[in-house]
Amino acid sequence: MTALAEEIARTYGTPAVVIDLDKVEANIARLQAACDAAGIANRPHIKTHKSPELARLQREAGARGITCQKLGEAEVMADGGLDDILISYNILGEEKLGRLGALQRRVRMIVAADNPVTISGLPKAAEIAGRNLEVVVECDTGRQRAGVETPAEAVELAKMIAGSKGLTFAGFMMYPPEDGWERTQRFLDTANAGLRDAGLEAPGMVSTGGSPNIPNMGKLKGSTEHRSGTSIFNDRMQVAAGVATLDDCALSVYATVVSRAGPERGILDSGSKTLTSDTGGLEGHGYILEYPAAKIAKFAEEHGFLDLSASNDRPKVGEVVRIIPNHVCVVVNMVDRLITVRGDKLIGELPVAARGKLT
Amino acid sequence: MTALAEEIARTYGTPAVVIDLDKVEANIARLQAACDAAGIANRPHIKTHKSPELARLQREAGARGITCQKLGEAEVMADGGLDDILISYNILGEEKLGRLGALQRRVRMIVAADNPVTISGLPKAAEIAGRNLEVVVECDTGRQRAGVETPAEAVELAKMIAGSKGLTFAGFMMYPPEDGWERTQRFLDTANAGLRDAGLEAPGMVSTGGSPNIPNMGKLKGSTEHRSGTSIFNDRMQVAAGVATLDDCALSVYATVVSRAGPERGILDSGSKTLTSDTGGLEGHGYILEYPAAKIAKFAEEHGFLDLSASNDRPKVGEVVRIIPNHVCVVVNMVDRLITVRGDKLIGELPVAARGKLT
Repeated sequence: MTALAEEIARTYGTPAVVIDLDKVEANIARLQAACDAAGIANRPHIKTHKSPELARLQREAGARGITCQKLGEAEVMADGGLDDILISYNILGEEKLGRLGALQRRVRMIVAADNPVTISGLPKAAEIAGRNLEVVVECDTGRQRAGVETPAEAVELAKMIAGSKGLTFAGFMMYPPEDGWERTQRFLDTANAGLRDAGLEAPGMVSTGGSPNIPNMGKLKGSTEHRSGTSIFNDRMQVAAGVATLDDCALSVYATVVSRAGPERGILDSGSKTLTSDTGGLEGHGYILEYPAAKIAKFAEEHGFLDLSASNDRPKVGEVVRIIPNHVCVVVNMVDRLITVRGDKLIGELPVAARGKLT
Repeated sequence: MTALAEEIARTYGTPAVVIDLDKVEANIARLQAACDAAGIANRPHIKTHKSPELARLQREAGARGITCQKLGEAEVMADGGLDDILISYNILGEEKLGRLGALQRRVRMIVAADNPVTISGLPKAAEIAGRNLEVVVECDTGRQRAGVETPAEAVELAKMIAGSKGLTFAGFMMYPPEDGWERTQRFLDTANAGLRDAGLEAPGMVSTGGSPNIPNMGKLKGSTEHRSGTSIFNDRMQVAAGVATLDDCALSVYATVVSRAGPERGILDSGSKTLTSDTGGLEGHGYILEYPAAKIAKFAEEHGFLDLSASNDRPKVGEVVRIIPNHVCVVVNMVDRLITVRGDKLIGELPVAARGKLT
């Protein structure tokens, strides 16, 4: 148990969600350098950190703008001085269109759409804003999430956007599977040909996404921007994907062993309310730096069930351990503040200002 | 899509986490009636609702006190006028002991312990409070979470508590598996015999827990109190356990279908950031009232992946649907407020004041 762990426990209690600002800054610089090397603009996704302060660091490092998933996140970011925001999501309904229009009056907004219902609502936001709203067509190139499945549909929606009062067709957005970049190229080439046939200009923006896709940036001819979220902190999933090392993980959860009722088991004061039930497809619910052979086998809300059977070293009740979470974005969303350190020095707190913005 | 769904979407946007106060009140009354019928005091667990207002309703209905899992929850509840609080958790460390002492100065506090390290710290809280702190020994009777595994250990800890300055041995706490009540009886009887041999008084409090255990209340001879959390709202797990009907579920998530890119699939604007990745061991991530054959097959943070292949009726983009979550406690912890209705009438909002209290 380090002096820093003792200080954090004494000051804040555990569980404590802690970021190392030195590592955060290094991760921001590394992403920007990778974008620069690929000749792609950087538009980081703020879903991971939900902090205007960190978004400003990303912009100061060279990012063109930011990506948000929700209007509520974009509102917090605009309040925090960010002025070029892509919402990578279908915005639907009167309540949201009013808020989108109010935002677009203040800052540059770009939104995604994958269907005619979404597009038919967006002119209302542009009307409120008093100026044109940029819209990208979301394309599915293998992930089966949102996004039109064919280039022909993408072109139809581009035509609808271009023909809508108050809307500007801005380009295409996709989130290629790590092994789906050739397919994505074919999709984009076919869609671009369709645009030409329809008398539309080539897209100004072609936006790709995903932190595990950082090594793939530049592979897609015609791409202009990339959206990476997780790489600012990294996590066990990023390490498993081979795009980060444990040492690149800027966020860890300090947790206390609160029970050792059996010789081969224990309980951590971090359960699903801190680390979440999102396994990210990995075995166990996090990596304990001090006890790498220990397994966080399951969760109750406030209990992490430690399986110590494979670990020769076993923690005592009262000991504070550090956990690298499987999926960092969802952990950040559980907390109102992050505790900040630099190396072994406690710095302070950073509010997670855009936490829990459902809408 | 009902008029209420339209009104909620127009007023708050979706996803919206909504409780029906009529059902909440009926659920509170039902739990109290079951406790009364079993001759057991009601000490509901506030982890499910995290709201002092709802805790006061539970007390007004007849609850003896409340249960919290975290000091931060207990602080919010004490501020809200609740004055008899069990923290069913090992409290460890200087920071927490200071807060526990400050709380115990204001209200009756009872805490759980399952090991000597925890017990050795608690006198500090009592010293701060200036009066004795009641401590129950947590016993494991089959769930393999926290709690001593044997009656002999329970008696040893009871002796340690009784011999500690500032501490009062208050009794035993357990969370029996639904099929573990006979085993729990043997544990309690043996522990009670051990207390007699040690010259200690019989326990004043024997506290059992679990909403699926409501039908088992009264089975344990000697039990005095029960802790039930989920039954105030109920959820798909409670329905699956046979202790509630869908109609007893007071909380639902209103979500919008934002994409229908394929004929057999769709995307909801509710993902793991609202419904969480906690499946509760069930298939699919929630029950859609309007489309019971539709399956919420997987999640991204803001995307619920709808598998519509088994559903003849299929929702359109823009449609608002209602979801009964698998596990309601973790959903409440994602939001800062609950939207309140009575039947088909929108009432207002209720803050989730004890949300996200990690420590």
